Amino acid sequence: MGSQMQRRFGAIEAGGTKFVCAVGDESGHILTESRFPTTDPSTTLAAMIDTLRKQRAECGPFAAIGLGSFGPIELNPASAHHGCILDTPKPGWTGVDVAGALEHEFGVPVAFDTDVNAAALAEHRWGSCQDIEDLVYITVGTGIGGGALVAGRRVHGLMHPEMGHLLARRHPLDVGFSGVCPFHADCYEGLASGPAIVARSGAQLESLAADHPQWEIEADYLGQLCTQLVFALSPRRIVLGGGVMNHARLFPAIRRRVQYWLGGYVRREELQSGLDAYLVPPNLGAQAGIRGALALALEISARET
Amino acid sequence: MGSQMQRRFGAIEAGGTKFVCAVGDESGHILTESRFPTTDPSTTLAAMIDTLRKQRAECGPFAAIGLGSFGPIELNPASAHHGCILDTPKPGWTGVDVAGALEHEFGVPVAFDTDVNAAALAEHRWGSCQDIEDLVYITVGTGIGGGALVAGRRVHGLMHPEMGHLLARRHPLDVGFSGVCPFHADCYEGLASGPAIVARSGAQLESLAADHPQWEIEADYLGQLCTQLVFALSPRRIVLGGGVMNHARLFPAIRRRVQYWLGGYVRREELQSGLDAYLVPPNLGAQAGIRGALALALEISARET
Repeated sequence: MGSQMQRRFGAIEAGGTKFVCAVGDESGHILTESRFPTTDPSTTLAAMIDTLRKQRAECGPFAAIGLGSFGPIELNPASAHHGCILDTPKPGWTGVDVAGALEHEFGVPVAFDTDVNAAALAEHRWGSCQDIEDLVYITVGTGIGGGALVAGRRVHGLMHPEMGHLLARRHPLDVGFSGVCPFHADCYEGLASGPAIVARSGAQLESLAADHPQWEIEADYLGQLCTQLVFALSPRRIVLGGGVMNHARLFPAIRRRVQYWLGGYVRREELQSGLDAYLVPPNLGAQAGIRGALALALEISARET
Repeated sequence: MGSQMQRRFGAIEAGGTKFVCAVGDESGHILTESRFPTTDPSTTLAAMIDTLRKQRAECGPFAAIGLGSFGPIELNPASAHHGCILDTPKPGWTGVDVAGALEHEFGVPVAFDTDVNAAALAEHRWGSCQDIEDLVYITVGTGIGGGALVAGRRVHGLMHPEMGHLLARRHPLDVGFSGVCPFHADCYEGLASGPAIVARSGAQLESLAADHPQWEIEADYLGQLCTQLVFALSPRRIVLGGGVMNHARLFPAIRRRVQYWLGGYVRREELQSGLDAYLVPPNLGAQAGIRGALALALEISARET
């Protein structure tokens, strides 16, 4: 099929620190992509609309749009707030209807989910988890979030998972740090997100020596989190993405802590000698999020036609 | 339809302390039920077969059999150990093929799952969760286990959830107790199961005064566990069953601790003023397990015909 006949899809990754707008095609290929910082809602939504208009002029009209958003967001179609950002500590963003703004402007179906559920979907469709139906995708960056597929379906339930807020157990070298989560202080997001690292150590991970205890503390908390998710959800694989996970040396350290915290329970090959293939980086790398948004657009388009 | 025309289904709840064998019909009604203690595997399996033979003579042949079992058990149909009990601290039980014994004896389809996934299914089909598709069922007794439905499907993944083994955070009044889990010492099963209560306090919950700290400690751990599951799985309801939960006064105390641990995050009506309807006892009471086994039998029978 010639490229003129290919349908185009809008994709937006709405993150806490940056927005990515892109156009993709049915095969999952991204044709054009543009990013800008997340500021106040009206400036940010105006930039989003403006960027997508230009991209549409360049690539052609959208058959549908997909949005992967920071949360919490309202996924319940029966709610009056469907598509809105829910109570968030991010100033001004509570109640903002990102999906509604897209629908109003472009008049095409808009599919949305959390950024991490979208990334889980992309890894399942095109990335590291094409062979399985049960997976968890965790991002470690400005915050910590997790999305999941169970039997191939994204987990929503009452709202959507908020995996970064599971209760952490304190590392013995970390008793003095209060944690940065405004709700729980010392949940995993409060103890192991990028801002937590800076608040504790006064520096980003990359500027700390290889023997700085921060590395061990970080690996321990993320190992704990993965272990808790094994017990709660029993995924067949856990994908760890986000800025902090660009430090590849965290992976072997996290795997060791997972074995420690499992304590010999769940005696599965995958969780012992197979751990290198169980805890993995996203095969789509930093594109997991935007490709996830594209996957959402493809899904709603397939449903509507 | 006359009762002669109704099909009969075998149902077994294989628990760590007792086995329940029953015969039920398509409407979920239990016609006859019999129980005996769980001892060594050969004695226990012989008693199971003998009981079911007598029940079959009484009620008629089985169209299918359902088994809800203590875990860990192998649910993967591709495994050579499909249907077997996996590594368990229970002496002699590792590798025992309960489902295979039933298939061999009765020659009908045998469906099986964990006791808690089966109970979750029963509560969804006939109990407290007929209106929702996303739920968690937790049992607190000899051990602590949890099963879940996500979008109406039982969660399996790599193995099946082992929710009792999530990492607990110590209650300030409970720093001296080491916990009873042979794998993790102080996971929720190690700190809040029936045996943990006895090991800590030297008595069952019912013999302790209403102001004994054990009550507060128990409610706190179970409140923590429910909160962690809200963050990990976002269920629309959590059902708490098992012997320990027969103490109805635990429910309001657990609900208070859930609100404490949520810390104002996930601002949903259901988790605030609606908590009485969110954290509930099983509507099927002590029958949740055996009715769950019956539900498994009905499901496999519907699939095969």
